[in-house]
Amino acid sequence: MVQASQVKDLVAPVSLLDTLKAIDAGTLSPADSIEACLQRLALIEQQIHAFVSINGHAVNEAKEAKGPLAGIALAVKDIFETRTLATEYNSPIYRGHEPVRDAALVTMARKAGSTVIGKSITTEFAFLDPGQTRNPHNLDHTPGGSSSGSAAAVASGMAHLAFGTQTGGSIIRPAAYCGVTGYKPSYSLMPKVGIKDFSWTLDTAGLFAAKVADCAFAASAITGRNLQVDPEAPFKQPTLGIIRCRTWQEADTDYVARFDMMVESLKRFGTPVVELKPSEHFLSAFKAHQIIQDYEASQALAWEYVNHADQLSPLLRQTLDFAQTITPSDYDEALICARTARRELREQFEDVDALLSLSAPGPAPEGLASTGSPIFNRIWTLLHTPCVNVTGLETENGLPLGVQVIGPEGEDQSTLQIAHWLEGAILRHLKG
Amino acid sequence: MVQASQVKDLVAPVSLLDTLKAIDAGTLSPADSIEACLQRLALIEQQIHAFVSINGHAVNEAKEAKGPLAGIALAVKDIFETRTLATEYNSPIYRGHEPVRDAALVTMARKAGSTVIGKSITTEFAFLDPGQTRNPHNLDHTPGGSSSGSAAAVASGMAHLAFGTQTGGSIIRPAAYCGVTGYKPSYSLMPKVGIKDFSWTLDTAGLFAAKVADCAFAASAITGRNLQVDPEAPFKQPTLGIIRCRTWQEADTDYVARFDMMVESLKRFGTPVVELKPSEHFLSAFKAHQIIQDYEASQALAWEYVNHADQLSPLLRQTLDFAQTITPSDYDEALICARTARRELREQFEDVDALLSLSAPGPAPEGLASTGSPIFNRIWTLLHTPCVNVTGLETENGLPLGVQVIGPEGEDQSTLQIAHWLEGAILRHLKG
Repeated sequence: MVQASQVKDLVAPVSLLDTLKAIDAGTLSPADSIEACLQRLALIEQQIHAFVSINGHAVNEAKEAKGPLAGIALAVKDIFETRTLATEYNSPIYRGHEPVRDAALVTMARKAGSTVIGKSITTEFAFLDPGQTRNPHNLDHTPGGSSSGSAAAVASGMAHLAFGTQTGGSIIRPAAYCGVTGYKPSYSLMPKVGIKDFSWTLDTAGLFAAKVADCAFAASAITGRNLQVDPEAPFKQPTLGIIRCRTWQEADTDYVARFDMMVESLKRFGTPVVELKPSEHFLSAFKAHQIIQDYEASQALAWEYVNHADQLSPLLRQTLDFAQTITPSDYDEALICARTARRELREQFEDVDALLSLSAPGPAPEGLASTGSPIFNRIWTLLHTPCVNVTGLETENGLPLGVQVIGPEGEDQSTLQIAHWLEGAILRHLKG
Repeated sequence: MVQASQVKDLVAPVSLLDTLKAIDAGTLSPADSIEACLQRLALIEQQIHAFVSINGHAVNEAKEAKGPLAGIALAVKDIFETRTLATEYNSPIYRGHEPVRDAALVTMARKAGSTVIGKSITTEFAFLDPGQTRNPHNLDHTPGGSSSGSAAAVASGMAHLAFGTQTGGSIIRPAAYCGVTGYKPSYSLMPKVGIKDFSWTLDTAGLFAAKVADCAFAASAITGRNLQVDPEAPFKQPTLGIIRCRTWQEADTDYVARFDMMVESLKRFGTPVVELKPSEHFLSAFKAHQIIQDYEASQALAWEYVNHADQLSPLLRQTLDFAQTITPSDYDEALICARTARRELREQFEDVDALLSLSAPGPAPEGLASTGSPIFNRIWTLLHTPCVNVTGLETENGLPLGVQVIGPEGEDQSTLQIAHWLEGAILRHLKG
């Protein structure tokens, strides 16, 4: 085990595609690949706290693994049901809870050959009350949430791949804070069967990996869809848009300055980037997100609220107390607002291929009492668009800063392709 | 226990509203109300087979019950998770399975005061392989499915209220076959948390009760929405439509004749009823339903299929085998087709308040090897509209025939109101 002061030097996501190349070349076996992750884990997990449980059979399972992801170590957020590892949702109500089956995505990922190495720490029921995980880049900072352990496990090379979910900003924000790629697919591209519901209109399953191409390859292998980024694809300059709504006023000014410099650099090299106005219902959709999330959570967690309210965190309990006052007609109006905002956004996407945004209001905040703010993510979760956190920028102190690429709903492949291209462009920009 | 030949004479749904009136008047206690249902159950359940398990604490629980449904006996389809009763999905894979929590709707129904008297028999995973339930009107006939036990329990007065779900025709068809009211709400009006997924785009939770007003009252009490039918509401003659697509050619001619006579009678008393053409995507939406259902089922049941294929029924296994050949782009196209058909239907609803249809191709078919055909239901499940099975018509031999009332998505109250009005009109028509 290493000291806290040494952790930062060990932070290095391990590329899934590089790993598979080594396996294909015969220089690494699937079992050795998993073993390497577990060695890294033995070294630094006690400083990071990314996992709630570890699969003691992982190496043996990897020996039997077949499929495109054989040798890939997968961390599964602890709101996915797993048959052989307890599923506790970071709630005392479910301490030791052992589901009888695996979630659909876990089954699909195992079938594709990956090995579940453990359950990664979530905030309580994937809401806002923090788990025990620390940010690998600075242990005094939050890793973000709610998929805290998933992001941290990939960032520190303990897993090649991790499952997460996003209801507010639970994939993109921790990915940005931890400096890894986070991919929130179009709503319902990945099945949610066996994942604990919080708000069914919003809950979206997705992935963490080192780079965009890693996420794209894994998503293809798991879903059977063609989502891979093609390095040989003829280069077509995308047209990009930015919608600077009022949330940007709350963002860290240094972060905005770095983002703007990157945009200027893109323009200088010939990429059209246009500023777009928020559509008519874009701003009211922010409020709609809150209403939908809270109203649905009060039904999704009805059993826990009615029978075990004393075992909920004060934050969640207060939210559910408040949710009892939301009327069905408030909720119905919010759903209509969301539908209208989605239609307006589809129209805006007629002029641009993707949108760029910050991934969070700033770098990972100091302290572990909060997982940071999802204000740069909620709207896109509501609008069901694919989102990718692209790595590369960082603060003066070396904390990661993410750039969020947002595509039209259902256009996941082109969104990943643009994110992959941007990842390279940021590298070139930083070098230049 | 009664003999098989005596069952038919005992078939009599017990109105939830009449029961609550007696409780309000002090002539019946909630516990006695539950006791009466259990006595009926002791008398005829061995002939009907509506339940897979019975709650031995029901009467005691009713003594503590508070809320608008105190004294109401609720049967819960055995694909809803229940903490105190096993949840087996009528699959050997889940024999004895005991979830740790109640489904959201079960919690909400308990909170409203109703008492769960048992788990009602479902077909295997709510698909097509029949359960053990018989039709109370004729034990040699199917009760329909997949919510077989729920419909039969209400039809035979063993429960006042039952939960069901519909992915193809699993609420409206058994309601029609068993002669009770079935209410499939607008998609997602009732939360599905804790209900086994089969096809998340289609699965819809709903209710069975004696009459339309009973369903409407219970739905209001459980969801907190105002869905009640108002007998004092000023009478507004609805404009009704009929879309006679090609499935009507497969319907029983006597059934169609009785339906048409009812329509003529409605017209004679001044109700406008217009014939509408199927919209452009209406017919292709039939095929879309199949593709969406099978593709999503192959993911929703991925764990069972990969690990326990030998314990699936041949029918389900073949369906899942075939589903492996559906491509993601077939599925995406089917989703787009469904979305387009929904928009077209919304436009058609600008001219009519509700649509009328048969609830099934005929009365409950003889034999227990099949639960009948969902061809008159699938399209409405896909289109997310509220549907109500209205009772009153029957065959020469006394088998129930249903009339299906279909309203615009989100307009559940007016749809229930029209169904309630039609229920009365059918009674008057039969008397006239």
